[in-house]
Amino acid sequence: MPNSTLEERCVNTIRTLSIDAVQAAESGHPGMPMGMADAAFVLWDKFLKHNPTHPEWYDRDRFILSAGHGSMLLYSLLHLTGYDLSLDQLKNFRQWGSKTPGHPEYGHTPGVETTTGPLGQGFATGVGMAMAEAHLAAKFNNGKFKLTDHYTYGIVSDGDLMEGISHEAASMAGHMKLGKIIYLYDSNRISIDGSTDLAFTEDVFSRFQSYGWHVTEIDGHDRKAVENAIKEAQQVGNKPSLVICKTHIGFGSPNKQDSAASHGAPLGEEEVRLTKENLGWESDEKFFIPDDVLQYFRKALDRGEKWHSDWRQKMEEFKNYEPETSEAFHSQISRKLPADIEEHLLHFEADEKGMATRAASGKVLNKIAPHVPSLIGGSADLTGSNKTWIDDAGIFNADNYAGTNIHFGVREHAMGAALNGMALHKGVIPYGGTFLIFSDYCRPAIRIAALSNIPSIYVFTHDSIGLGEDGPTHQPIEHLASLRAMPHALVLRPADANETAWAWKAALEYTDGPALLVLTRQSLPTVKRDANNAASLTMKGAYIISDSEKETPDTILLATGSEVHIALEAQKELKNEDIDGRVVSMPSWELFAQQDKSYQEEVLPSAVTARISIEAAAPFGWERWIGNKGIAIGLNRFGASAPYEEIYEHLGITSERVVQEAKKLHR
Amino acid sequence: MPNSTLEERCVNTIRTLSIDAVQAAESGHPGMPMGMADAAFVLWDKFLKHNPTHPEWYDRDRFILSAGHGSMLLYSLLHLTGYDLSLDQLKNFRQWGSKTPGHPEYGHTPGVETTTGPLGQGFATGVGMAMAEAHLAAKFNNGKFKLTDHYTYGIVSDGDLMEGISHEAASMAGHMKLGKIIYLYDSNRISIDGSTDLAFTEDVFSRFQSYGWHVTEIDGHDRKAVENAIKEAQQVGNKPSLVICKTHIGFGSPNKQDSAASHGAPLGEEEVRLTKENLGWESDEKFFIPDDVLQYFRKALDRGEKWHSDWRQKMEEFKNYEPETSEAFHSQISRKLPADIEEHLLHFEADEKGMATRAASGKVLNKIAPHVPSLIGGSADLTGSNKTWIDDAGIFNADNYAGTNIHFGVREHAMGAALNGMALHKGVIPYGGTFLIFSDYCRPAIRIAALSNIPSIYVFTHDSIGLGEDGPTHQPIEHLASLRAMPHALVLRPADANETAWAWKAALEYTDGPALLVLTRQSLPTVKRDANNAASLTMKGAYIISDSEKETPDTILLATGSEVHIALEAQKELKNEDIDGRVVSMPSWELFAQQDKSYQEEVLPSAVTARISIEAAAPFGWERWIGNKGIAIGLNRFGASAPYEEIYEHLGITSERVVQEAKKLHR
Repeated sequence: MPNSTLEERCVNTIRTLSIDAVQAAESGHPGMPMGMADAAFVLWDKFLKHNPTHPEWYDRDRFILSAGHGSMLLYSLLHLTGYDLSLDQLKNFRQWGSKTPGHPEYGHTPGVETTTGPLGQGFATGVGMAMAEAHLAAKFNNGKFKLTDHYTYGIVSDGDLMEGISHEAASMAGHMKLGKIIYLYDSNRISIDGSTDLAFTEDVFSRFQSYGWHVTEIDGHDRKAVENAIKEAQQVGNKPSLVICKTHIGFGSPNKQDSAASHGAPLGEEEVRLTKENLGWESDEKFFIPDDVLQYFRKALDRGEKWHSDWRQKMEEFKNYEPETSEAFHSQISRKLPADIEEHLLHFEADEKGMATRAASGKVLNKIAPHVPSLIGGSADLTGSNKTWIDDAGIFNADNYAGTNIHFGVREHAMGAALNGMALHKGVIPYGGTFLIFSDYCRPAIRIAALSNIPSIYVFTHDSIGLGEDGPTHQPIEHLASLRAMPHALVLRPADANETAWAWKAALEYTDGPALLVLTRQSLPTVKRDANNAASLTMKGAYIISDSEKETPDTILLATGSEVHIALEAQKELKNEDIDGRVVSMPSWELFAQQDKSYQEEVLPSAVTARISIEAAAPFGWERWIGNKGIAIGLNRFGASAPYEEIYEHLGITSERVVQEAKKLHR
Repeated sequence: MPNSTLEERCVNTIRTLSIDAVQAAESGHPGMPMGMADAAFVLWDKFLKHNPTHPEWYDRDRFILSAGHGSMLLYSLLHLTGYDLSLDQLKNFRQWGSKTPGHPEYGHTPGVETTTGPLGQGFATGVGMAMAEAHLAAKFNNGKFKLTDHYTYGIVSDGDLMEGISHEAASMAGHMKLGKIIYLYDSNRISIDGSTDLAFTEDVFSRFQSYGWHVTEIDGHDRKAVENAIKEAQQVGNKPSLVICKTHIGFGSPNKQDSAASHGAPLGEEEVRLTKENLGWESDEKFFIPDDVLQYFRKALDRGEKWHSDWRQKMEEFKNYEPETSEAFHSQISRKLPADIEEHLLHFEADEKGMATRAASGKVLNKIAPHVPSLIGGSADLTGSNKTWIDDAGIFNADNYAGTNIHFGVREHAMGAALNGMALHKGVIPYGGTFLIFSDYCRPAIRIAALSNIPSIYVFTHDSIGLGEDGPTHQPIEHLASLRAMPHALVLRPADANETAWAWKAALEYTDGPALLVLTRQSLPTVKRDANNAASLTMKGAYIISDSEKETPDTILLATGSEVHIALEAQKELKNEDIDGRVVSMPSWELFAQQDKSYQEEVLPSAVTARISIEAAAPFGWERWIGNKGIAIGLNRFGASAPYEEIYEHLGITSERVVQEAKKLHR
């Protein structure tokens, strides 16, 4: 197309790479990359501060493709601007072993900032990134040195904005006045079912204004307008920005533009041909990239190197200027934990009265926080209940981004995604609290953390019928099983205050996925410890908390959390029945499963098949540990509203019940 | 208080009952009932059409306390207006066996329309009720007879509006122009953490206008203003209404009004006394109800009887006027299924090529729909993928509420709650579709259905790595286990087209909770059937789909859904190894667990311990069926993006793998 400008040819390269890759894979979403190519080009060409050869450079702008189904848009840009993503990878879109999976996956492809696809996740994860940016800037920048100073850009879709999580995250970002968020909304009026008129007719413009956002609406194919809108958004310091880009999905396709037909399926060979013709594309060749286009895009390498080296230079100067702060900053952005972390774990004396593990958690957190200054977190409006408050650390808000106590509001889902975003940003170790029951509300974000090895920490309190009067709507039953079934999720349900301290250590050290602390509302005795049942054994996932007298016990009682105390009580009662029992506390199935066979055999000798598990939850899955002959005491029903001791009694989660079942095994 | 009007004394009775009950329980939320007593009184006294002696009367107005923590507000009103909820029940608030649990539970307390407490659920469930109302009115009302003609009222809180589900449901209700929704928003500016200024500063007024709602703001303690606002809302036929009631939480408490201290804890004996004094309350007696107040409230009984008998009269006339329509209407509101439902199940011929179970589901649904006219449903923007469309049934929207195909938009959570609301309303059998992975997005609503025995039907397609190229973000792994762990949830994962037909029957007949159909994207062979492996055995949860030659098999292969075919293939291959295998298809663990021991023993003889399960999912929980010596073939990792056959191959979900494992068992 002789009359095309270089810019137009750049944009059309994004389009043609995307349609060729989807066509080759015979699967994917071509319409979105075609529609957003103009706006994305402007963003990446004129604004995005990044260094393709060092995708992990700390002070880069973050770019999130929340509409992850349009992954070829991102892969095209990554290839064109010189990331380590070859053209062959694009040709292998959606194939086994490629770096170009159907939806962008963090950790899998260089330059992908977070895993997207499940709609709304990217939108809310970006809010978390911007929170981390604001916090670290407030904490470490000074007039002379801005070590943290970048934007969080994103492309979001109709689908993202329909999901509830977008509301939570947008309302939260507006409240927090996170001015460095700039999202381009691909308003193409087409969803998978057809026109958005079928289901989505809200006024997005005024909706986002109501959240306190800066909103503009432009023609998303008018590149000058996109440029001006982003510039304007950058000037608005105290509001996140939504740039509504009116676009045509499948732009350039003579028969499928503005139609759902271009949304989730290849255009078809013939339509690909017609589209290229219609765009005045200069070659029939698949995956064709004009030389001058590539050359133009690759200027990103020099720009990136320049930005990056300027920043390195600044860092060096800062190091000389404020060596201690510089070290603290480095330590945070590399997620360094103190070598002597064990020294900072609270130790609790044995105490029959004891305390709730949530209370212990609050104390442990406060003891450890001064030594792990990257800790930042809060609760979804249950701060006092979750015991997530860190004393003297201030509230994180628009007046004080340096504060570390976050009020997420009643927004569990946005909280979960924000934790992911903060962890992905690096520089902070984020945690978030709610009742265990509401893990259901943030489950999709927990799963993103699991899938992408994001170390988000959850403080889930009120973990069973032990919460009492609030009743079955608030009493978890299936939640332990449902979280244990998720790969990479680390579930920790400590039995007393000291196990809680070590569970926090395990959580902080775990970086393969989310760590989930599961804590009681009700008080639990603090167990007497010696070398044989040291609380540090928590790190092994399961251990003998109270052994039998015989070398080989008659029976093994396995329990977690609050039910360990029932097992210990039953152990005593069983002596009267001449049954010699061992009690195994099992705070984490995942950690125990990782131990070597000999340790597992030591704790759970195969010879002992008379095993009883006790957990105030669905017994689902306990067969793994108790075997065929074992008995799982648990709840195959929902709970009830009453003082908790009565519920335990009525539902048979008692030492008497354990004794009764044990006698059956020894009849 | 001699100067108090009777109305004021009525309102203060609600307040004092609520604070007395919370105080007696030493647990609960007094502030909300105190703050909303005025508005709730006006709604119940001047508007709410209901019959306390027949809480189930079909054409009543629905009232939803979405802010379920304020349960004493509802219990007080139920007692005062004459429902079967004695004063003793109020005195036993939150106690074992009472009808007054911490949060309102449907099915547990007469007059409670839906279970609330988990925030946002009530808000969105009410939208479902209004959808059912609009649909049944459009379908059966005519100029002369309005058999369905009622409002859906609700009280919603700051917390409800922070939750993402409120956004989804509000946007959907605005789109659908559900004018008979009238929600009173208790805007008291206090959440559990303190002032809503901590986290929630959006402009709710304009937010709801942007959804297409009618919004007004009033002083929630000005009862005349409340009355006028509700009257005005009733006049707005084509928009749902939000009446923002500015209120004082803990109204009347001299030291705790307008403070988070009155939110989630008893006021304390002394403050209760001071509050009563401050309100000019006429007695120190706990749970005191002035005679004239009770008398006034109990007028609801006569009003209710009148409304109800007028409606019965109308029904009688209608029966004479249009006997067939009348019968159809009755049949729908009593959730009657055709006696010959089996006749309407599609039968599919054996076919090696077969079809995806989602495709079979679509065909079965279309075959059965004309015989089950109460079926209504759709998809969260995946209609074509989920195969949820019913031909010739029209789209449910503001122009055609009689249509039954619902476009929920990308709003899985609101869809789940709307299904609950429609089912609770009665008159329709609702279903909703999305990918199985997104069951996570609607999990809290699925749980409400399970807890409250609500027969919502879910069509979950794309149920494993078998969806292929979309990759791990879209491939369920832990979802089967996590749903099976939930009490009352019925999980159905059929192995071929004919099992799918019977799974639909099981789903339609199940009324103890949600029925979850789990279906493939990819094609599966249609199995050859005879009397021994009839597809009707699906109803037993597990059955021998292909038996061994020996009476007692060497090994048993257990599988569900798409993996049954791998098991059948392996069975053949095992013959070459002289291992005689039985294949058990296990579409539903829950149904199989309900069978008597002898049937279970017949299918899975205890003598055969060489068992292998095959499921393309987390193997979590399979030990239950395969025992100690069994081997579970599954996925302890996330999936990958590639054509699905390759993923199965690479991840070892293959018949070769089964053979290999079986040989280990027989070594």
